[in-house]
Amino acid sequence: MKALALADTTILEGLETPDRLRLLPESELQRVADAVRAEMIDAVSITGGHLGSGLGVVELTVALHHVFDTPDDRIVWDVGHQCYPHKILTGRRDRIRTLRQGGGLSGFTKRSESEYDPFGAAHSSTSISAALGMAVARDLDDAEAKAKGEAPGKRRNMIAVIGDGSMSAGMAYEAMNNAGALHSRLIVILNDNDMSIAPPVGAMSAYLARLASGGTYRSLRETAKQLGKLLPKALYQRAAAAEEYARSLIVGGGTMFEEMGFHYVGPVDGHNLDHLLPVLKNVRDSDQGPILLHVVTQKGKGYAPAEASADRYHGVVKFDVVSGVQAKAKANAPAYTRVFGESLIKAADADPKVVAITAAMPGGTGIDLFGKAHPDRTFDVGIAEQHAVTFAGGLATEGYKPFVAIYSTFLQRAYDQVVHDVALQNLPVRFCLDRAGLVGADGATHAGAFDLAYLCCLPNMTVMAAADEAELVHMVATAHAHDSGPIALRYPRGEGVGVELPESGEPLAIGRGRVVRRPEGARVALLSLGTRLSEALKAADALEAEGVAVSVADARFAKPLDAEMIVDLANSHEVLVTVEEGSVGGFGAMVLHLLSERGVLDAGRVRVRTLTLPDVYQDHDKPEKMYAEAGLDAEGILKAVRAALPDQKKGSRTGRLRLA
Amino acid sequence: MKALALADTTILEGLETPDRLRLLPESELQRVADAVRAEMIDAVSITGGHLGSGLGVVELTVALHHVFDTPDDRIVWDVGHQCYPHKILTGRRDRIRTLRQGGGLSGFTKRSESEYDPFGAAHSSTSISAALGMAVARDLDDAEAKAKGEAPGKRRNMIAVIGDGSMSAGMAYEAMNNAGALHSRLIVILNDNDMSIAPPVGAMSAYLARLASGGTYRSLRETAKQLGKLLPKALYQRAAAAEEYARSLIVGGGTMFEEMGFHYVGPVDGHNLDHLLPVLKNVRDSDQGPILLHVVTQKGKGYAPAEASADRYHGVVKFDVVSGVQAKAKANAPAYTRVFGESLIKAADADPKVVAITAAMPGGTGIDLFGKAHPDRTFDVGIAEQHAVTFAGGLATEGYKPFVAIYSTFLQRAYDQVVHDVALQNLPVRFCLDRAGLVGADGATHAGAFDLAYLCCLPNMTVMAAADEAELVHMVATAHAHDSGPIALRYPRGEGVGVELPESGEPLAIGRGRVVRRPEGARVALLSLGTRLSEALKAADALEAEGVAVSVADARFAKPLDAEMIVDLANSHEVLVTVEEGSVGGFGAMVLHLLSERGVLDAGRVRVRTLTLPDVYQDHDKPEKMYAEAGLDAEGILKAVRAALPDQKKGSRTGRLRLA
Repeated sequence: MKALALADTTILEGLETPDRLRLLPESELQRVADAVRAEMIDAVSITGGHLGSGLGVVELTVALHHVFDTPDDRIVWDVGHQCYPHKILTGRRDRIRTLRQGGGLSGFTKRSESEYDPFGAAHSSTSISAALGMAVARDLDDAEAKAKGEAPGKRRNMIAVIGDGSMSAGMAYEAMNNAGALHSRLIVILNDNDMSIAPPVGAMSAYLARLASGGTYRSLRETAKQLGKLLPKALYQRAAAAEEYARSLIVGGGTMFEEMGFHYVGPVDGHNLDHLLPVLKNVRDSDQGPILLHVVTQKGKGYAPAEASADRYHGVVKFDVVSGVQAKAKANAPAYTRVFGESLIKAADADPKVVAITAAMPGGTGIDLFGKAHPDRTFDVGIAEQHAVTFAGGLATEGYKPFVAIYSTFLQRAYDQVVHDVALQNLPVRFCLDRAGLVGADGATHAGAFDLAYLCCLPNMTVMAAADEAELVHMVATAHAHDSGPIALRYPRGEGVGVELPESGEPLAIGRGRVVRRPEGARVALLSLGTRLSEALKAADALEAEGVAVSVADARFAKPLDAEMIVDLANSHEVLVTVEEGSVGGFGAMVLHLLSERGVLDAGRVRVRTLTLPDVYQDHDKPEKMYAEAGLDAEGILKAVRAALPDQKKGSRTGRLRLA
Repeated sequence: MKALALADTTILEGLETPDRLRLLPESELQRVADAVRAEMIDAVSITGGHLGSGLGVVELTVALHHVFDTPDDRIVWDVGHQCYPHKILTGRRDRIRTLRQGGGLSGFTKRSESEYDPFGAAHSSTSISAALGMAVARDLDDAEAKAKGEAPGKRRNMIAVIGDGSMSAGMAYEAMNNAGALHSRLIVILNDNDMSIAPPVGAMSAYLARLASGGTYRSLRETAKQLGKLLPKALYQRAAAAEEYARSLIVGGGTMFEEMGFHYVGPVDGHNLDHLLPVLKNVRDSDQGPILLHVVTQKGKGYAPAEASADRYHGVVKFDVVSGVQAKAKANAPAYTRVFGESLIKAADADPKVVAITAAMPGGTGIDLFGKAHPDRTFDVGIAEQHAVTFAGGLATEGYKPFVAIYSTFLQRAYDQVVHDVALQNLPVRFCLDRAGLVGADGATHAGAFDLAYLCCLPNMTVMAAADEAELVHMVATAHAHDSGPIALRYPRGEGVGVELPESGEPLAIGRGRVVRRPEGARVALLSLGTRLSEALKAADALEAEGVAVSVADARFAKPLDAEMIVDLANSHEVLVTVEEGSVGGFGAMVLHLLSERGVLDAGRVRVRTLTLPDVYQDHDKPEKMYAEAGLDAEGILKAVRAALPDQKKGSRTGRLRLA
């Protein structure tokens, strides 16, 4: 242990799996919690990752695995970025320092990783739906056994643990609405740390704060009376004896959750095991329908720097445990996110109709910068992508120019709104898709792989991808100028390539690409969309060193295509290779549709290949490794060209090409 | 007027637009309402369409246009299937008998149709988001004017009218959560008829029922006191004088809506203009933040057959006004929906693990039939597609075999759940996509155009399309047997082609198509996915009559493709035409990716063309006309083949082909 300030972790050595934890006396559990916390801080200081969320649920995690019979009882962690303590306690402590590294543990729950992860996560607000499905499955199993005259199976518990931030998403409400009507035995633990990634927004958040604060402590007598509803008499008496926790509880009575058909229990101090343990045992033993247990925790609990700045310690890079100082990445170029944010600020400086919308990701999307410059035109709607998009549609009908900044993967949450509310009505909403393509450590759940496929198929939609950060500046200007219908621009996670940024963006001609190089006698054309352009240029250099002249073009638009340029490239080269950071069905597919429709492929003059992301969910790793695996680096492009170059041609040096 | 029982509609002749309506004394408005109701019943008896929803809001519509200054004030009708009275009163009465007919009025609100339709709709639960966007735009306009020292613009009102059924969708909650925190002046009218299309489900519905029923009438004194919060004093005094309505109101006080940051007003009798008018005027004149006005209505109000059977009269075909008897369609073959439902029942009869899930569309999806046979294994989760899919994912993790039956267009609502919760985890959820392809009278908003594009791009996903109803039987069996990952089957609206149904379904080999005919010397291959197969066969007949032999194949799978069959077809024909009822980026794109990757196109031996839906949102019309317009009928296929047939070949009779 390099961190002198952290607790001793030796107690964890006997606790590889939770069955061992369940043998410990309750009096030992705080020591376990302290050790888990120390272990987690040390691990994340090495690997980087999500810190604050996990620290906030250390006691809850220990209590859950002590009280519930995991993995037969199912704990579904919402989002999953708070699951590091859970991983430490469920057989993965030996690999905890491989978190988010290539070949290592995922930063989220993952079914293929452990039987203690009954449902994978990463996007928010799915846990209640999943756990309800499991609860209903258990009930059906029991009913079937009963119908056959068999003994019922083991009494299993299904537990969803969901943060207050995640409760702003409609999906959580849909699940509550269904669960409240189904009466299935389900435990929802609301982990209320008054935070999502950024401070939470919305009316529900304010409601929870009221609930968690003043006037909520009831007398023991009242509480005991209310608990009587929840528990069989014997259990209730045992429960009622535990004076320590009862003072901190409301059970039932007029909360919104009660109105939605849940039994509400709480608020409970989520860092006090003396309170948590008896309450958890009681909800476990209750035979009532769905229970919502409101647990109040502190994000970053137990690590001073994270407690002091919960948002900065939500996700961290490597850091020094003693000082809390995070390693500074050496940035060679500004991040796309920042370039986007700054470009949008300039657009808004000049045009009062520009407004920006984020769904609870101001920092991740650059809308935090925009919000400082134009607070009145900044809307953080909470984790509510569906609403974000249609809200933008409403603004657009009134002559505003909304920029909706959402990660590519999260726009999947609002697909119908993009189709039905925006594209179909041809409303000029600007979709700014950050994290397009592969994202590295966050892995498959966060990959922005499908937006080209799911957007290019939509009539009225214009789709751009930036090849570098200067292009992004121009594309923000293009989106600003394009007021006749919806338009999307995509750009990747991370730093730009270091090109000089223009003073101001210039709107690009819609549906026009650019030929970056076109040497005399070029046999091969590389048609890139997005930031693979630099790899395409590297591949072109390598080919040219071997005597094969290569044209390189940047399509800029996946829709509408620059048909003239693309048909010309196809007609004047032996091989045309498209390159994109997206799945099949996207840019390459649009090019194939075009060339086939125009009959360009009929004569067999050109060999077309489409390089896309592979048809698998790639595990997390360094982005460059993932792109290499996908065959989308210079080497992969080269390989594709090599394989396609007609070897019957005289003078071909196919097979001897190599990357410089 | 053919309907003797209906009220006189002559009063409508002077009321082409709402400004005229606003000049009428309040005492005349019930006569207007009666006339609108009569007009609507008569029109729908001719055109078919949505009946019950519109009848339920006749008085509300009249009152809204009388009290509010439309179109400057914006009324956003949720879903829009209740908007026929609104259309009658907003300049479209002369075309009301063209509803849902080709070239006629849309069955929903539509921006391009009228300035009185500020936001188009058809999918549910979008209205609060859109209206909030408009309200914020107004506020920004006002703030900008103020900053410039200009007078504020006209005081405009933004009104969303949303049904209680639509409140089960997460999107409505997301919008409420945001509106409740924004404090923008917004009026949400909850049209509570205790119905969506089917009887509503879920905890919220039960809550509303409690709110609308017993114990909700307050004393005038109490109400007046509460109204004081909402209105400036002068207005409040005027308002408080209106004893008639005050007795039926709760204002504020402990409802869920208050907790969400809304001012709650209601419940109000939505058929009593004496109550509605003063309340609407008061909410109009209030300067408070968001207001939720709870209006209780009866679906089908004023037309006895519709009142008696609200679900059967939600959507109707032509009917006889006096008797209420709906015209029976002459069915030549069972509808796909019914074949699906019956096939699924058989699967469930044999396998206790089969469960069915619908998102508030039991009748539309055939899950109503299933529910009668297997009520314990049927789950109607409400208008909650996101939850439906992840709930199914939870069931699948526990060994169940969930069939999620959702219209293709509505699965767009759950795209992220398909990707993140199901496909990424490779869970065996069965997606049963009804209404795939064009849907006719419901128009562009309901077209199932994009599912092939948005599903085929997903790793782990298997995608099938049924060529006829017998194929559908086999595909249900295939989905049942396929327990190793997610699988989707798509089938269209309407009747099958009349083929004999198999006794029981046989699982198909995954990723295997079938060659339907392959004559000697075939020059052309038609590769169909889905029910265009019959048109492909017609086109083939016509070509063969002209001496061009044609092979026809049914791909069955869009993913994984039958690579062997498709490569063979491409290698052995001069022309290969793919045909599908979907957008670009779907099946045809997958075929092009395959052929390009395999180098099959390199030699120029085969001309490939992909016939898809056009890159526009097609307006509603009869499906066969829409398919003709799309070039996906036999004539269109023929035309594509003709254009592609190499005319340099000897013996070609291109140009003289004609459809038999």
